[in-house]
Amino acid sequence: MIKVVIIGAGNVATHLYHCFNQAMEFNVVQVFNRNKDHLDFVEDPAKRNSDLSKIAEADLYLIAIKDEAIEDLSIKLKVKKGIVAHTSGSQDMNTLATFENYGVFYPLQTFSKTKAVDFKEIPICLEANSEPNLEFLKKAASIISDKIFEVNSEQRRALHLSAVFVNNFSNHLFALAEDYCKQNQLPFEILRPLIKETVSKIETLDPYSAQTGPALRNDQKTIAAHLEMLDEDNKKIYTILTESIQKLHGKKL
Amino acid sequence: MIKVVIIGAGNVATHLYHCFNQAMEFNVVQVFNRNKDHLDFVEDPAKRNSDLSKIAEADLYLIAIKDEAIEDLSIKLKVKKGIVAHTSGSQDMNTLATFENYGVFYPLQTFSKTKAVDFKEIPICLEANSEPNLEFLKKAASIISDKIFEVNSEQRRALHLSAVFVNNFSNHLFALAEDYCKQNQLPFEILRPLIKETVSKIETLDPYSAQTGPALRNDQKTIAAHLEMLDEDNKKIYTILTESIQKLHGKKL
Repeated sequence: MIKVVIIGAGNVATHLYHCFNQAMEFNVVQVFNRNKDHLDFVEDPAKRNSDLSKIAEADLYLIAIKDEAIEDLSIKLKVKKGIVAHTSGSQDMNTLATFENYGVFYPLQTFSKTKAVDFKEIPICLEANSEPNLEFLKKAASIISDKIFEVNSEQRRALHLSAVFVNNFSNHLFALAEDYCKQNQLPFEILRPLIKETVSKIETLDPYSAQTGPALRNDQKTIAAHLEMLDEDNKKIYTILTESIQKLHGKKL
Repeated sequence: MIKVVIIGAGNVATHLYHCFNQAMEFNVVQVFNRNKDHLDFVEDPAKRNSDLSKIAEADLYLIAIKDEAIEDLSIKLKVKKGIVAHTSGSQDMNTLATFENYGVFYPLQTFSKTKAVDFKEIPICLEANSEPNLEFLKKAASIISDKIFEVNSEQRRALHLSAVFVNNFSNHLFALAEDYCKQNQLPFEILRPLIKETVSKIETLDPYSAQTGPALRNDQKTIAAHLEMLDEDNKKIYTILTESIQKLHGKKL
């Protein structure tokens, strides 16, 4: 049984807690958060801790707090044995170099408090300061997920940036379309099946090959008609993405 | 039984043919295409037609050809009775005003030859030149789909433009991420579950509420770090989408 202490009470910490708590191979011995009021999600009150000097002994300490707070916390955290790993996509592993055994345990997913996720499907990106520590993290991660990747700090930053493109920016395009639908008395509902199919397509095709539309066809008439329908801000987005599609696919506007 | 003639042999025509052909309530009496070689998908060779003067009699003529060819074809197409409808997202209904009975039958979806689609889930946007014709199109459309919408020509153009945002542009963001992953020796595989979840989220949340990320949090440190990692072209895309997120959500960069 792997003893785990989870540090944090945000979306990632909460989802990790529930996931580890359900796995027989783990024993979540404690969850730490500065503010005890946010620890209600921890079933056993005895496992809630808001005093950093009373951190329990464990095999694995998972720091799932805001990026900018990791360094400060790691200075104050006294850990004798066990591996300390953060769950951040953008922080270097060496932020934890004050510990003897450390690494990164980065679940690449978007977490919302109210939405359940299936950890088996979540890629977990691992990095560690030694081969035995990496092996330990691999063993732990593979209990909860089928998708384990060894990823160095630089690659992890690249992944985090890619995640902004595929998640934050795509979702914003959906939000812009939602806004535009409202302006035209159209229910956003009509677009949902198309959005679903857009993603369903790239389960079998790579996105480069799945590309369609007026930019790819260099259909200047449709592009011009679309540009005329948009306000200045969205015209810029349309133009820059159209140019980018044509550049990636080797055409000129 | 509704007799249908399909005009065209592209992705939309092919998918419509298969869908109507499987529905008991329809009889696809003919499929027309200028080039007979492209009509192999039509099971019964007697129903393949490449001579516009030999168009069969039908209740419904569906024009599923390139936007720019619709007007020219509609001048040459001699139809005595029956309703003529095109399937285009961007062409005005009145392109078909030479006919007595006409309308629009626009399935809002991205079609690829090799990928099967479930028509029941595809929104079909209808418009017609008279109330009885609209009722007829509604009846026909509701046989193949559960999602029927009455949409005028202006709204349909807005939908078509929205479709470019949610489908073409989102897919391109996936392609840019794929490219960036390659540059960093990362398999695009790692991002697929995140992309899937991005879309799964908006099945229950509207995209505006589902937004997350550094732009929304106005996390200047992460934004600056990301910008430094990107080339000039992608920096522009990152900046313009970040600004757009903050504008839509009422924050300043």
